[in-house]
Amino acid sequence: MPDRDRCVALDRDDPLAGRRDRFDLPAGVIYLAGNSLGPPSADAPERLARFAREQWGAHLVGGWTADGWIELPRRLGARIAPLVGADADEVVVCDSTSVNLFKLLHAACDLRPDRPVIAAAADDFPTDRYLVDAVAAQRGRTVRRLDPLRVTAAELADSAVLVCSHVHYRTGRLYDMRSLTAAAHAGGALALWDVSHSVGALPLQLDVCAVDLAVGCTYKFLNGGPGAPALAFVARHAQEAMANPIAGWLGHAEPFAFAPAYRPAAGVGRLVAGTPDVAAMVCLDTALDVFDELDLAAARAKATALTDLFVQLIRGRLGDAFAVVSPREAQMRGSQVSLAHRDAYPIVQALIARGVVGDFRAPDVLRFGFAPLYLRHVDVFDAVSALADVMRAEDWRNPRYTRRAAVT
Amino acid sequence: MPDRDRCVALDRDDPLAGRRDRFDLPAGVIYLAGNSLGPPSADAPERLARFAREQWGAHLVGGWTADGWIELPRRLGARIAPLVGADADEVVVCDSTSVNLFKLLHAACDLRPDRPVIAAAADDFPTDRYLVDAVAAQRGRTVRRLDPLRVTAAELADSAVLVCSHVHYRTGRLYDMRSLTAAAHAGGALALWDVSHSVGALPLQLDVCAVDLAVGCTYKFLNGGPGAPALAFVARHAQEAMANPIAGWLGHAEPFAFAPAYRPAAGVGRLVAGTPDVAAMVCLDTALDVFDELDLAAARAKATALTDLFVQLIRGRLGDAFAVVSPREAQMRGSQVSLAHRDAYPIVQALIARGVVGDFRAPDVLRFGFAPLYLRHVDVFDAVSALADVMRAEDWRNPRYTRRAAVT
Repeated sequence: MPDRDRCVALDRDDPLAGRRDRFDLPAGVIYLAGNSLGPPSADAPERLARFAREQWGAHLVGGWTADGWIELPRRLGARIAPLVGADADEVVVCDSTSVNLFKLLHAACDLRPDRPVIAAAADDFPTDRYLVDAVAAQRGRTVRRLDPLRVTAAELADSAVLVCSHVHYRTGRLYDMRSLTAAAHAGGALALWDVSHSVGALPLQLDVCAVDLAVGCTYKFLNGGPGAPALAFVARHAQEAMANPIAGWLGHAEPFAFAPAYRPAAGVGRLVAGTPDVAAMVCLDTALDVFDELDLAAARAKATALTDLFVQLIRGRLGDAFAVVSPREAQMRGSQVSLAHRDAYPIVQALIARGVVGDFRAPDVLRFGFAPLYLRHVDVFDAVSALADVMRAEDWRNPRYTRRAAVT
Repeated sequence: MPDRDRCVALDRDDPLAGRRDRFDLPAGVIYLAGNSLGPPSADAPERLARFAREQWGAHLVGGWTADGWIELPRRLGARIAPLVGADADEVVVCDSTSVNLFKLLHAACDLRPDRPVIAAAADDFPTDRYLVDAVAAQRGRTVRRLDPLRVTAAELADSAVLVCSHVHYRTGRLYDMRSLTAAAHAGGALALWDVSHSVGALPLQLDVCAVDLAVGCTYKFLNGGPGAPALAFVARHAQEAMANPIAGWLGHAEPFAFAPAYRPAAGVGRLVAGTPDVAAMVCLDTALDVFDELDLAAARAKATALTDLFVQLIRGRLGDAFAVVSPREAQMRGSQVSLAHRDAYPIVQALIARGVVGDFRAPDVLRFGFAPLYLRHVDVFDAVSALADVMRAEDWRNPRYTRRAAVT
């Protein structure tokens, strides 16, 4: 079991160590919730101020052209494309993950009009579950919940689409995008992936896996800011046949012609609905700078080392105080390790009070994200030390930690 | 006809003169496009920077509670409510105007399930037209286009809803919210207003007019920032029967219970779908400070004086060079005057080159917005002088002004 000195040595040799300097993390905090909300890069405050002063304030409505605001949905999509294994014109950034999922579920029903079922991963993130149910009701389809570990082509033979999160929000399990997409296709269904918990943490291969449709958050491992606009991916083969149910004016082929009837823009641009939110997109644009010239395979290797180290230290220093919910094999996990404990909620609060930020997911899960761009091996060591202190001192029995907040 | 000295004198007596100091407008610019995109308030750069540094950077994921981010959709809705004549719990801020219009059109169809028609103002703003067509197709309704000046209850006897912009984007005409809503109700239809071009410029009375549903931009006269999240209003009587077709997790009654099935939040909060975009909402929150303790009736009176002055000067100094598209009676206009001219496009470009920013709307309209919070009578005088100079010098014949930009 590595000691602290060994962790310091590993950090000295870390080829990604320099990326940490791009962030301005608060002193005394070990941030293991970047899978929920990534931190700002150090230049985010100044970049936002400059947007308001030098773009909006200086050019006013002229910013739509002078500062290229009108291009932001496609330009940010093109910036994200190499991170997900897509061509530049297959990704767009707009609206929220929920709204984009709504659009692509409807698009999938359009593309497979005669198939009566929407197949979806059981126990997926709530918004994915709710929207699958809602769109199925709107389109007269039924929902079939499946265990993504046991999906077969035969089960999808009547399905329009298979919807699945790439990394499970609670367990951290990483599903096999390639084989699940192949199963969907063998059954005649489309594959729609939610990459919210994987984009930015590991190299995605939407192209190699032949994925049809995808959505994802940009405010988790991409650090785009709280509630930042979401990505939507549509493989080129599906673009021209696809309709956006929310036929807003900026998805029109010629929005400034003010034409009487809707005519969709070419390609993925038709997924835009209303006017893009520029402040939010500037925030995301700034965040993406940190990913320039990043080797995502190296980032994944480091994240794997960090999650392995965490599991090893939890076992070695805390025995079986916690059940490890995430898969034991690092290659089957995202950049996340989840532990289970009956008192998960107050333990997470007590840990936060000691400067280690993870989060709680009902009913009994402690969730820890390991963002390879700003976390060090020594942070993992110190986080486990803090958790050991919490358990030793039983400070999670303190009533101040048991009171539930509105947002968990 | 007032001369420049008279305009200076009017500005000296203007009770709203102090509000102009809250903005930091670029030197040498007279900004008559605030009906398209309002300018930032002077503190917007610092407020955005502080959000990134002192909220997001300092509290990280804890900002959702520590900084009240999770409450922003309802809190900003409550801030806008008095500006539109609504109760605090009847307005929410989220998504774009297009997305909110989509939701409320579906909600209207739900609320009037047996009515085969969606009635809509003819020649309305493109996104309103496109979304009416799209939702009608999705819900098996037909669309009836009506002239809002001639709507009768009888024509709405088979309609689920009447959809109309309060101020027409191109002509600046202000429609009579009270009588049109009454006609809709007399015919058994709901009334859905798009207040994008009126909110913030004149006092709205959604309550007195008994409006059922409304949407609106916050980035025009409210100055919330380019593409800022939109407002949605649902009268209390319609809230509990209303469903959000985009059943995202943050419209759930208990989002952090991660429950298997969707259950809508109480009231207007169910219109939220995905995670709110905090940077954008901080931007809007900052903008709304300028409206604190503002007498909107006084703002309307000033705007009316400004548009009257503009029309008077155009007629007096430019004769019949331009047709006045907007209604002659100020009480029938929004804070906007539109002129028509065959060479509208290059004239607008030439004017911008002289520091007077208006905008062009196809095919032949010059559009000028008169935001009462930061414009002076002398600005109106100088803008007309600049337009007279453009016409006298015929600098709009210059090829540099005839080349069309992508965004007009």
